[in-house]
Formats: sequence, C-alpha cells, structure tokens
Amino acid sequence: MAHISLPNEELPGIVGLFNFRPETAKPLGALADVLLRGPSSLSSADRELIASYVSNLNNCHFCHTSHGAAAMAHLSCDVNLLDDIKQDFITIPVSQKLRTLLAIATKVQKGGKNVLEEDIQTAREAGANDEEIHDTVLIAAAFCMFNRYVDGLGTWAPKENDAYREMGERMAFVGYNRY
Amino acid sequence: MAHISLPNEELPGIVGLFNFRPETAKPLGALADVLLRGPSSLSSADRELIASYVSNLNNCHFCHTSHGAAAMAHLSCDVNLLDDIKQDFITIPVSQKLRTLLAIATKVQKGGKNVLEEDIQTAREAGANDEEIHDTVLIAAAFCMFNRYVDGLGTWAPKENDAYREMGERMAFVGYNRY
Repeated sequence: MAHISLPNEELPGIVGLFNFRPETAKPLGALADVLLRGPSSLSSADRELIASYVSNLNNCHFCHTSHGAAAMAHLSCDVNLLDDIKQDFITIPVSQKLRTLLAIATKVQKGGKNVLEEDIQTAREAGANDEEIHDTVLIAAAFCMFNRYVDGLGTWAPKENDAYREMGERMAFVGYNRY
Repeated sequence: MAHISLPNEELPGIVGLFNFRPETAKPLGALADVLLRGPSSLSSADRELIASYVSNLNNCHFCHTSHGAAAMAHLSCDVNLLDDIKQDFITIPVSQKLRTLLAIATKVQKGGKNVLEEDIQTAREAGANDEEIHDTVLIAAAFCMFNRYVDGLGTWAPKENDAYREMGERMAFVGYNRY
C-alpha cells in the first residue's frame, strides 16, 4: 500500500500518483512525452533505453520495467529481452554513440558534477551533437525524479515483465500526454 | 563555459538551458510553477525552502541560492539570511510540520526507498496531510532532477547571494511559466 491514500489503489507506480494529483500529472506527462517521443535525432527506442537504464541504477522496478517495455515495443522485441538492459546490453544491439550517452547518464545519476568535459568529448567523437547530449542529461535527471517520486511514496509495481507488455505499447505508441 | 554551446552564454544556470531548448523548458517551467506557486495548504515560502534545502544537499549552488532567494522574497527577508538553510534553520523560523517534511525530503534526496512508513507517520502527527506529503516528495524528487540538469551540463552560476536578489523576487512573484 502506498504511503498516502490514493483514489484507486489498483493503479500501479506513477499511474496512481497521476490519478491522485492531476495538477502535477499534466506537466510531468508533458515532460515525459517531449523527452521520450518528441522530435529528436535520437530514436524513441534509444531514449526509452536511457530512461530504463537509469531507473535500474536507481533501483526503481516500476520505471525500469515499464520504460524497458516501451523500448522493446519501439524495437518490436519481446518484453523479456528487457532484462538485458541490467546486464549492459549483451543482446540488445547498442550503437557506440548510445554507449557514450549511457556513460554520461550513469554519471548524471550519481550527481550532475560527475559529468566531465572528457565524457562530453567522448560522446562527440562517437557522433553525438549538443541536442543529443542535452537530452541525455535531462532524461537521466528526469528519471532521478520519476524514480524517487514512485518509490518515495511507496507505490506498488507488478513484478513480472509480462505484466508490462501492454503498458509499454501504450507508452510507446499512445504516449504520456494523458492529463 | 557550459558543456554544450548555448545561444546566450551570459544566462546563468537553468535559464541558459531553457533558452537552448524551449520544448523542454515549457513542461519544466509548468512543473516548477504548480509545485512551488500553485494552490496548496503549504505556503510558497515553505515549498521554496524545501527546494533550496534539497538543492544544497545535492550541492547545486545555482538552485540552492535562487530558490533560497525566492523563499526569502516570500518571507520578506534579506537574501543573506538564506545561508541559514545550510545550517538547518537556526535563524529562519520553521514549524514542526515543515521540519518533519524536510526530514522526508532528505530521505528522498538519497533515494525514494529510504522513506519509511514511520517518517510519514511522524509528519502526520505534526499535522501534515496526504497532499502535503505528496508535494514534499515530488518537490524533493524534482530538485534531484533540476540540480542534475543544471550541473550535468556544466552551466555557470553567480557566487554571491546578492546576485540572486532580483531573480528570487521574479521567481516568487512572477513565477516559472515563461515559455
């Protein structure tokens, strides 16, 4: 049970919180939508992978699995493949550019000041441009918020990957602007 | 100099980033506005104090000082009093309820799962309701995002409190919805 009384206890993770407080759900949904589905030279699959990767570093099962499922929906892969994200992409093919962006995201998760000029340089050499670097930092930072929001209020989350299949498809193809 | 090329290098902290990417500035500004200035039984001063307190825990000088200055503007206090936030409010008067909410925010800053049912219970006994607990967790989580965004992209920040006087007044009385 969540730390606060939610109108519908059956809704998992952030969904129950969005239902509790639509005033904050609106900008949070709009932020997720522009970051993960808005126009960008990074694919939505890559952006969802960054979100899922950071959520795993923050030990947030709901966000890791739901955004992993969204990435799998974009990639037309089975949701069970998303466990590979925890193992640093042994199976899911990841470009060198995305690897350097994931390295920046890993540093942001620990704290903004950990990102050094040399990390940016490495990403640039792998082909990342300023907007891609900006969006990577902001996606990693935003999931440090979403993860703390979901877990700080003690929401519940389904355990199995399979339970996130439909949610991932909805996130990928319908989006986050629902408030 | 920031890690990416900003159109106006003179704009400090998040202001330069908002200028670089208005698409993400819009929901970020809307989120800050509803969280810190929207209708709530917590005063805007209390909410800005939580934001400034968490930003200091994250070692983000720009957010700590600008939101501290906004709190001081709401309280009609001099900006130099905001240094007191770093010392756990020796001078600024803080209610018992706000102290219990700051304790929750401190746990959220470390990670959402640190918040325990007993922390919530202590806040409830001091008079906090569900919406106030929700908003405290989300403000603390949001500043874990804003702080990482500002520092992860290496933006610059004025050093002295005095430089934030006008900015704090604008944040307090004009708001964050500027995109």
